[in-house]
Amino acid sequence: MNQPERTQSLVDRAIKSVSGHIQQRGLRVGDSLPGEGYFAAQLGVSRGVMREAFGALAALKLIDVGNGRKPRVAAIDGAVIGASLDHAVATAQVTVPEVWDVRRTVELRTVALAAKSATQGEAEQIVDLARAMAAAIDDRAAMAPLDIAFHLAIARASHNALFLAIVTAFAPLMEVAVPAAWSTREAEADRNLMIDRHLAVAVAIRRRDVAAAVAAMDAHFDASVGDTLRGLAQSGR
Amino acid sequence: MNQPERTQSLVDRAIKSVSGHIQQRGLRVGDSLPGEGYFAAQLGVSRGVMREAFGALAALKLIDVGNGRKPRVAAIDGAVIGASLDHAVATAQVTVPEVWDVRRTVELRTVALAAKSATQGEAEQIVDLARAMAAAIDDRAAMAPLDIAFHLAIARASHNALFLAIVTAFAPLMEVAVPAAWSTREAEADRNLMIDRHLAVAVAIRRRDVAAAVAAMDAHFDASVGDTLRGLAQSGR
Repeated sequence: MNQPERTQSLVDRAIKSVSGHIQQRGLRVGDSLPGEGYFAAQLGVSRGVMREAFGALAALKLIDVGNGRKPRVAAIDGAVIGASLDHAVATAQVTVPEVWDVRRTVELRTVALAAKSATQGEAEQIVDLARAMAAAIDDRAAMAPLDIAFHLAIARASHNALFLAIVTAFAPLMEVAVPAAWSTREAEADRNLMIDRHLAVAVAIRRRDVAAAVAAMDAHFDASVGDTLRGLAQSGR
Repeated sequence: MNQPERTQSLVDRAIKSVSGHIQQRGLRVGDSLPGEGYFAAQLGVSRGVMREAFGALAALKLIDVGNGRKPRVAAIDGAVIGASLDHAVATAQVTVPEVWDVRRTVELRTVALAAKSATQGEAEQIVDLARAMAAAIDDRAAMAPLDIAFHLAIARASHNALFLAIVTAFAPLMEVAVPAAWSTREAEADRNLMIDRHLAVAVAIRRRDVAAAVAAMDAHFDASVGDTLRGLAQSGR
């Protein structure tokens, strides 16, 4: 084994050792971990190897190491899945229609779970976001953040943290795709239809009507996927 | 801003710059990138900062940097999503039933796409894997790898690279969950039923019968989720 290979396997072992420490002690988000020195001594590796391992764990958001504080167990937030997704799309390993198929599959389930499990407050917030979209119909800059917030609020109301992380991971792609899709809806009728579909989803969730919520989300995706692909093609992406 | 915070924002900028380079040049998997020195000079940052940035990009599997070769654009393989998922489960941010709900949602779609899009060779391979499971009915050590390979073969036959990455990300959890579930199936009848469900999925895919393939996968999940949760509870996880 040459030197870089040997170092890499040491770093991999160090990463596994920190993950194992978190798992065996049953640590939870925010719990602090021993520093690099502790693990370096335990494993008999250099501090340089441990520094690389901590860097990798921080990049993967398994630990937080900001501000020179003690490292802590980090919360899952979808950013890591999102970085993987962006890279895969940017390098043409995954196409936009493939991403949209995954989004539709995931969101047909989150909307069903939200219609079953949303608290009253969560249901009202989803309706409020759909209304805010209706109010912003001529404000293209406001539309993408509202649209993203709408889909995230539904994912949150599914009360499944993994679905929430996955929908969060789609947000960076939506920041590009939503304005592109919106730009294809030049006729007021098309814009009103899109707003109506979001309102239909929201109202069905508030009514606890699972079948109607799923049907409304499906209709939304049928229309928006076409618009998105047209919009991205026009914007040259 | 204190020193570590300042370094972190430099590293973040360096990471974005390398991602931007990949995107703007339209690089593809396996294409090589300039080294740390190039980006350090471009951005006016130290090589130490660039080394940290490259380490983070390698941890996120956006670039490969092994063996002292030139860094290259890396392929998405589900390992990063898998690491995020394992961490979230290990630290109780996501529960096993939540993961299984996501898996069911994703795999009801991959099985439908596979029934539509699998090549003849892919369909035969899925049937072969189900038959290999039947032949290994008393060999618990062989069962988990075959079961994982079966679900991955279906995801591959969906011809959606993002679904394949997501199903790949579930594999480490399945390595624990499949033996746990299998251990609850002490009666031969229970084992035969589980094997029959896999065969039913495989045969429906080969027949190009989308509805039957989805129904068979749904029946499989109905049974296996219950067994998995019982198995994991018994094994104290």
